[in-house]
Amino acid sequence: MYDSPPGTHLTLGSRLGSMGLVKSKAAVFVGAGKPLELWDFDLPNLEAGELLVRMNVTGICGTDVHRWHNNKTPTPMIFGHENVGIIEKIGKGGVADAIGNELLEGDRVVFGGRMPCGRCYICTVAQEPTSCEHGLSYGASASTERPFLRGGFANYVHLVQHAKITKIPDEISTEKAILAVIGNRTLIQGFEKVGGIQAGDTVVIQGSGPIGLAALIQAKLAGAMRLIIIGAPQERLEVARQIGANETVSIEELHDPDKRVSRIMELTEGNGGDLVVEASGGPTAVEEGIRMTRVGGKYLIIGQATDYGPRAINPYHIARRQLRVFGSWAAQPVHLYRALRSMEKFDFPMNRLVTHRFSLADATKGLESVENLESIIAVIEQ
Amino acid sequence: MYDSPPGTHLTLGSRLGSMGLVKSKAAVFVGAGKPLELWDFDLPNLEAGELLVRMNVTGICGTDVHRWHNNKTPTPMIFGHENVGIIEKIGKGGVADAIGNELLEGDRVVFGGRMPCGRCYICTVAQEPTSCEHGLSYGASASTERPFLRGGFANYVHLVQHAKITKIPDEISTEKAILAVIGNRTLIQGFEKVGGIQAGDTVVIQGSGPIGLAALIQAKLAGAMRLIIIGAPQERLEVARQIGANETVSIEELHDPDKRVSRIMELTEGNGGDLVVEASGGPTAVEEGIRMTRVGGKYLIIGQATDYGPRAINPYHIARRQLRVFGSWAAQPVHLYRALRSMEKFDFPMNRLVTHRFSLADATKGLESVENLESIIAVIEQ
Amino acid sequence: MYDSPPGTHLTLGSRLGSMGLVKSKAAVFVGAGKPLELWDFDLPNLEAGELLVRMNVTGICGTDVHRWHNNKTPTPMIFGHENVGIIEKIGKGGVADAIGNELLEGDRVVFGGRMPCGRCYICTVAQEPTSCEHGLSYGASASTERPFLRGGFANYVHLVQHAKITKIPDEISTEKAILAVIGNRTLIQGFEKVGGIQAGDTVVIQGSGPIGLAALIQAKLAGAMRLIIIGAPQERLEVARQIGANETVSIEELHDPDKRVSRIMELTEGNGGDLVVEASGGPTAVEEGIRMTRVGGKYLIIGQATDYGPRAINPYHIARRQLRVFGSWAAQPVHLYRALRSMEKFDFPMNRLVTHRFSLADATKGLESVENLESIIAVIEQ
Amino acid sequence: MYDSPPGTHLTLGSRLGSMGLVKSKAAVFVGAGKPLELWDFDLPNLEAGELLVRMNVTGICGTDVHRWHNNKTPTPMIFGHENVGIIEKIGKGGVADAIGNELLEGDRVVFGGRMPCGRCYICTVAQEPTSCEHGLSYGASASTERPFLRGGFANYVHLVQHAKITKIPDEISTEKAILAVIGNRTLIQGFEKVGGIQAGDTVVIQGSGPIGLAALIQAKLAGAMRLIIIGAPQERLEVARQIGANETVSIEELHDPDKRVSRIMELTEGNGGDLVVEASGGPTAVEEGIRMTRVGGKYLIIGQATDYGPRAINPYHIARRQLRVFGSWAAQPVHLYRALRSMEKFDFPMNRLVTHRFSLADATKGLESVENLESIIAVIEQ
Repeated sequence: MYDSPPGTHLTLGSRLGSMGLVKSKAAVFVGAGKPLELWDFDLPNLEAGELLVRMNVTGICGTDVHRWHNNKTPTPMIFGHENVGIIEKIGKGGVADAIGNELLEGDRVVFGGRMPCGRCYICTVAQEPTSCEHGLSYGASASTERPFLRGGFANYVHLVQHAKITKIPDEISTEKAILAVIGNRTLIQGFEKVGGIQAGDTVVIQGSGPIGLAALIQAKLAGAMRLIIIGAPQERLEVARQIGANETVSIEELHDPDKRVSRIMELTEGNGGDLVVEASGGPTAVEEGIRMTRVGGKYLIIGQATDYGPRAINPYHIARRQLRVFGSWAAQPVHLYRALRSMEKFDFPMNRLVTHRFSLADATKGLESVENLESIIAVIEQ
Repeated sequence: MYDSPPGTHLTLGSRLGSMGLVKSKAAVFVGAGKPLELWDFDLPNLEAGELLVRMNVTGICGTDVHRWHNNKTPTPMIFGHENVGIIEKIGKGGVADAIGNELLEGDRVVFGGRMPCGRCYICTVAQEPTSCEHGLSYGASASTERPFLRGGFANYVHLVQHAKITKIPDEISTEKAILAVIGNRTLIQGFEKVGGIQAGDTVVIQGSGPIGLAALIQAKLAGAMRLIIIGAPQERLEVARQIGANETVSIEELHDPDKRVSRIMELTEGNGGDLVVEASGGPTAVEEGIRMTRVGGKYLIIGQATDYGPRAINPYHIARRQLRVFGSWAAQPVHLYRALRSMEKFDFPMNRLVTHRFSLADATKGLESVENLESIIAVIEQ
Repeated sequence: MYDSPPGTHLTLGSRLGSMGLVKSKAAVFVGAGKPLELWDFDLPNLEAGELLVRMNVTGICGTDVHRWHNNKTPTPMIFGHENVGIIEKIGKGGVADAIGNELLEGDRVVFGGRMPCGRCYICTVAQEPTSCEHGLSYGASASTERPFLRGGFANYVHLVQHAKITKIPDEISTEKAILAVIGNRTLIQGFEKVGGIQAGDTVVIQGSGPIGLAALIQAKLAGAMRLIIIGAPQERLEVARQIGANETVSIEELHDPDKRVSRIMELTEGNGGDLVVEASGGPTAVEEGIRMTRVGGKYLIIGQATDYGPRAINPYHIARRQLRVFGSWAAQPVHLYRALRSMEKFDFPMNRLVTHRFSLADATKGLESVENLESIIAVIEQ
Repeated sequence: MYDSPPGTHLTLGSRLGSMGLVKSKAAVFVGAGKPLELWDFDLPNLEAGELLVRMNVTGICGTDVHRWHNNKTPTPMIFGHENVGIIEKIGKGGVADAIGNELLEGDRVVFGGRMPCGRCYICTVAQEPTSCEHGLSYGASASTERPFLRGGFANYVHLVQHAKITKIPDEISTEKAILAVIGNRTLIQGFEKVGGIQAGDTVVIQGSGPIGLAALIQAKLAGAMRLIIIGAPQERLEVARQIGANETVSIEELHDPDKRVSRIMELTEGNGGDLVVEASGGPTAVEEGIRMTRVGGKYLIIGQATDYGPRAINPYHIARRQLRVFGSWAAQPVHLYRALRSMEKFDFPMNRLVTHRFSLADATKGLESVENLESIIAVIEQ
């Protein structure tokens, strides 16, 4: 009776409960805007190559909020694609992590959302596995077939064969590990795509949310000389200054995009940024950012993660200024590996970044705190 | 009395004529939409490092048509930035071409428009000399100070120190040389920026004008497996097929951008092009082209050479599909060098491309033929 | 009794034969320098995700000859890592090829040697799966455990889960497919590493064996303007000229490496090649090739596939001339995909390249023909 | 009588002196191994575009020592190619620096050695201007024609037209400026060539002299996670630790190259460095370094600045491990610009690096201190 479909969960839960089986609770999305429901799921029998992970910390992402309000999101779904947990059990034959470390029960591991299929045009020829749409997506696909426990908003997650997870090195704290998987790995893929940051570079970041701050952290670690961040509210800009932003530009003070462009030009001797990172998702951000990029400079689009349709963007600027514009989506295991290691050099009081912590039962409150921009980073902690 | 300002040219011309000096005629832009006027210019005394070139062939470019109709274009201006001529005279001390060949009187040379200054932020730090705005621009700046003969719509052009011109190898015909400087060099810089074409690549080209056809030629020479061109009218698409396009898509037949996107997807097994080149300048072209580019693919913007303001472009596609979008502007001497050499391998009846030839006196008719899309490539020939 | 170790093969063969099972013959390496022995292997029961492929053509590679003479090569081994065959049987659940095409019995497929493990430091972090040493290597590992039929010198090959094979497009002949997997895919990875070939480039190739000729073919398809090949004997140089080499340099005529360097400089206006490809494996080739490369040029080392220890190489040349030197090893599925497609554009009488064909029973003669440089490309054909 | 050849300098000096003209002393190389001689040079009349710079600090480089002992070095030569000075006088028309800043008398400027010609194959096509052999080389060419004051071992340097010098930003101290032009700019070009340093990278540096320590500084600023330096003597390794080396390997303690390779493998979990920098010039360094580089890693050769002929290097390692090996030579103005700006972030007691300072009269002692490895960085200070 293991791994049965969740069906009418209460009844199912009861029935399973009466059988004395160990179960996992999960906060389940059951419909747009509705509070997440706490369901019981049977723990699976593991097959070869599978893992059962007891969740420790899960990021509550803006993407989760979008899915929560989107009536196209399939149900039932367990959110949570930024995960740190502890291995509870390993299927026979053993499992190695993404770089070949043999995994043991009790190991701390970090894992993201999608597991690319590895054998489609996008994985093999385009070599952009983070755009693969075939592999299993943890935290973003309906729990309608095995593995049912496929999201971090739960006590346990069931990782099936070839799940690319990474063992957390001993010298990296769990808090740094969750930071690595929230934003930082994404920026490492992004910075790799743009060809990195060069000595003396000025980096301009649009957006001061988790992605914008991750851009700030990684740009600082990568040696940018001058860091400018554009965002709001003031508390986030204050944290940005503490992290190392040389200049902050408040969108509450400078409402007008033209004025923001002028301000950036003023701060860069009229040249613009060597690298400008779009991490805001704002409707005018891309046009604004392109105008803030120096001739021959690079523009990295990471924040436009939701399809809001076309925006007003002037392609003449891209041509005349010979810009290089890169889109980047999520991160591969190599980027998570690099993100984890980069955290060694990031000394910063973590609770200024991870400002809100919720229990699994309060997951809906967590989504609200992210929606209302109350938190910088909010997590479910168990 | 050499190198005097052109002033009231007729009088000046007469006066100079009466002094028995050799003069050069030039077709001069004197105001938006007005017919070019034929003026007489004194031939200059050459200083050290300068050259006097007798014009042979000059391309009539769409940009010239834009300038012709733009009432912000300063006067008097001699158009003509795609030039092949013969060295008439060399200033004392001799002059070498861009790659160090010693130049001699009688040598055939090719030269483009702007001579970057070489010592500004854009030249030195951004290393995008084709975006430099300080150097002298032949064919695009007013003849209000020495050198006055600074455009190819003239019998002679006066090239001042550090003009980056290239000697035409003996094995390259003048017609191939003019093709190298029209479009082909531009595409070579563009293809360099995108990282080139790989074995098996499908290249989709938006636009079948001189730039689009140059993209086709260079993509073919660079070994693209499949070449698809989108444009009009039918005669241009026919020439494209003769050059080597595997498929042509007529915008006259497929008016709807969505249908053109579907057609490209159909022709590429649903993936899109590995490289899509915007060479049309069309208002919906960029959004269309981005949707035609495969995941992880490259989009090269060359055709958006006029600032028409913002267009409707969806940045989500760039992010989600992890595209790399490159703007490219004009070409450096290395690209002209490469373009010239690439022509060796391009066997094609040149008169199918250079369809219209005008005398200097008929330069205005030449502009009209380009404006009305009568010609594929139109030139002034002397 | 399926999939039993080959043990004392004759007896085993007999015993199995008496059970009426279908068997596959294989030409088996049993010791350095000994003739290959023809053994009978049981055909396996397929598990999910596995394939049985009936061999059609297998390349006989110089590497096979090295292994044949190397007394460290483990036994018993079935050579053959460049393979084209027809799917005989598919394990339950079906199998897709490397780019997601569903495979059917009767499909023609091409596959190479090593199947990288996908989860080690080299696969995940270094992202050089062709250097992985964990995955199963077809044609280069001992048949001491399942799958036993792991080399192309056999009637059948048993491909186990996640074997990265590619379906051959209908428009590609079997002969072109074998050419794609012999050398051409390797060069496509190599050319990708060096950043491709640019318009007008001169490519110099050291070596006129199968790898050197593949370099010639791919450089030609990639649009190199001038192709120079250095090698021997005359018949191979003649084929090189037929393929498109502009110049050939015979090492039989020019014994002295200094003279060969001078010759290349003479042919390149004193500059050297833009890209020089080491495809010979010769002891002095690398030093020679570095001296033949232009300032800022690229040197690709593909031919040094055997560890003969240090050579005399002057690192000052690399520093002073600012060279970029790349090593490349084998090819990934994407390169085989590209190689297959590139063959569409390669019109050439295949039998001038595939000069020798052997039956499986004559595999030892095939090795000898490669060893004695009698053949250009030799294959086992069934 | 300005700008006359130095001839029999004493007499000439006297004669000029008697004319009441201002003169510059210079420490002049007059023959291999001989002490530099102090000569008097007339100060030049400046032509348009020229500058007279009063020297402040000049690096004494290992290359100067090589030239000093090399009997092929032409005479008379004024050494000094790493220079910081103050503008004394500007030719008519004014002069801008390499990025377009208008220069004024009294401005602090930094300038390197060679001024590339800008119009040869190497400058234009190869686009490696630091390999150009035509431009004027300050500090490395004989003072046999105007400008005679062409080296930093002098009170004044005479910079002729198009000298690419850079104004020092106010916030950068003179000591940091000299550090920027000694080594750091060179490493910035080198790191640009290798594609930069990625998050989490381990950088291994061979050599602890000025170039090795500059590599350490720039790798640290560029965000390398782990820094390992191999060198001697202990005092230099101690400074390296103070700068930020995580590990130091003493070549005095580990004489055997094999043991050094093993030590690096031990420190890198058996993988090797992501980037290994050859900054030692040692005879076995390249082979050693290649073996220390991880699969797919990068090897940067900067230290092999003298042609000692071939070394024992195993090309199989490059091929099998798929290494990318880059040579880099000197630096372009963009790299000096970046180096200057990068110094803003480098907080370190400068006198631990610039350990020895000499007067112009003691220049020979300065050469000896560099030769005997007494100093880390030695300069002439005025």
